[in-house]
Amino acid sequence: MSDFVWGARVYWEDTDAGGVVYYANYLKFLERARTEWLRSHGFSQQALAEDPGVIFPVVRMSIEYRRPARLDDELLVSCDPRPRGATAIRFLQRICKRVPDAAAEPQMLAEAEVQVACVDAATFRPTRLPQFLMNALGAPESE
Amino acid sequence: MSDFVWGARVYWEDTDAGGVVYYANYLKFLERARTEWLRSHGFSQQALAEDPGVIFPVVRMSIEYRRPARLDDELLVSCDPRPRGATAIRFLQRICKRVPDAAAEPQMLAEAEVQVACVDAATFRPTRLPQFLMNALGAPESE
Amino acid sequence: MSDFVWGARVYWEDTDAGGVVYYANYLKFLERARTEWLRSHGFSQQALAEDPGVIFPVVRMSIEYRRPARLDDELLVSCDPRPRGATAIRFLQRICKRVPDAAAEPQMLAEAEVQVACVDAATFRPTRLPQFLMNALGAPESE
Amino acid sequence: MSDFVWGARVYWEDTDAGGVVYYANYLKFLERARTEWLRSHGFSQQALAEDPGVIFPVVRMSIEYRRPARLDDELLVSCDPRPRGATAIRFLQRICKRVPDAAAEPQMLAEAEVQVACVDAATFRPTRLPQFLMNALGAPESE
Repeated sequence: MSDFVWGARVYWEDTDAGGVVYYANYLKFLERARTEWLRSHGFSQQALAEDPGVIFPVVRMSIEYRRPARLDDELLVSCDPRPRGATAIRFLQRICKRVPDAAAEPQMLAEAEVQVACVDAATFRPTRLPQFLMNALGAPESE
Repeated sequence: MSDFVWGARVYWEDTDAGGVVYYANYLKFLERARTEWLRSHGFSQQALAEDPGVIFPVVRMSIEYRRPARLDDELLVSCDPRPRGATAIRFLQRICKRVPDAAAEPQMLAEAEVQVACVDAATFRPTRLPQFLMNALGAPESE
Repeated sequence: MSDFVWGARVYWEDTDAGGVVYYANYLKFLERARTEWLRSHGFSQQALAEDPGVIFPVVRMSIEYRRPARLDDELLVSCDPRPRGATAIRFLQRICKRVPDAAAEPQMLAEAEVQVACVDAATFRPTRLPQFLMNALGAPESE
Repeated sequence: MSDFVWGARVYWEDTDAGGVVYYANYLKFLERARTEWLRSHGFSQQALAEDPGVIFPVVRMSIEYRRPARLDDELLVSCDPRPRGATAIRFLQRICKRVPDAAAEPQMLAEAEVQVACVDAATFRPTRLPQFLMNALGAPESE
């Protein structure tokens, strides 16, 4: 499966006094890409929270910061989701920086692995991924 | 009524690439002071949202930024609340910076006026300030 | 001068436990629009900070919150900048929400007036707006 | 070495529309504890950035989210730093929640491992941890 990619621009709100993006704020870019991947398959999280009543909290993540992003940078945030059992999704994600030379490869800034659980919106108990999401993930039909 | 004052420390999360606190983040300090003023009177917003079912969204505010706050600064955030009709509170607030010389006056950084409405947590419709809150505000008993 | 408009999407990062956008986070949307207005005239703030060495801190603002924005909302943030003397710009800004019915007017959520000063990046002293910025603002040539 | 512990309160700014603390915001609590650990040894990051000219960017981290924190929760953030070679520190950190029953153990919410590098503030190149920091870390004198 080829990665889904979502763009983001670095604004003042994202930076800190070190002149670079604050380390927690990369997680916002990662989440926007996951949310937009879901939307690209026709699902909004708001709607899914109501019907079928599931939300997707992050249960674990790891991230490596390779190079800092700076004010005005144009980022490309990728998102490669894989089912993880019947009740979780693991996203492999990268944050790259567009470079002025159009022919050049984007420069990798950070790499993350994010695991989200599918939980009941009311009880926060783990619940099976909806079938349409399994389909979007390219997983075989559950029996 | 003398002002309620709450302390805050400036961390990396609050700053931006200009080397100073990002302009939106001063509003977080202001809110912490309002929340702690309420707590100092024995009320948590979480609890009030459940019983009697009211929340306090900001409906309007103005702020003047006089001098920037920087990383590691110790701030003093004041909060002088006044009833505004039966369904709103207006807070006069200041953000000052503690200076190393203990005898010196804190340096004023920003001054704000924040109006919050008392609204029903479910319908977001304006509703009367609870009597205990009127009491905390030093307002006369409503008849 | 017709307004410059910039789009923004509401993500989880923007919301709070009240189910709506946190009041300080609207200021981030406002700033993105100001930054993009500047960029639409060919200027990045990063570049202006280096040459001619000016930055644009907000010195005062007021905002009225009319209706809350929620998760997944598509916002339209407008920006109508006017010179304010030789060393400041006043932006009249609005945050509206796109509504599903394409024929319908966007719904106004918030209205703000934001004054930024033009200051020397090293000394933070007020300095004249660069001529190219005066031109972008539609101001007459200074003599 | 017993852990350093720093308190934090959950405010509206930290939460999201799911009613819990937004996943990126736990990283802010973690950083406050690291910064305060450093301060408890007499060092401010602002001062260290000037003399000897070092800053401490996070280069990698992993976090497990066990239970969500909510509005008004009182958190205890621990910080157990260990030298990692001559140019990095690894912090083992926990975020726990104070529970009303004073006799009860705080409830663990999240557990993280955060590696920061010691880099030159100007060049961002890795540089040796200052001796006073090695001392604070309980590391043997370097020869």
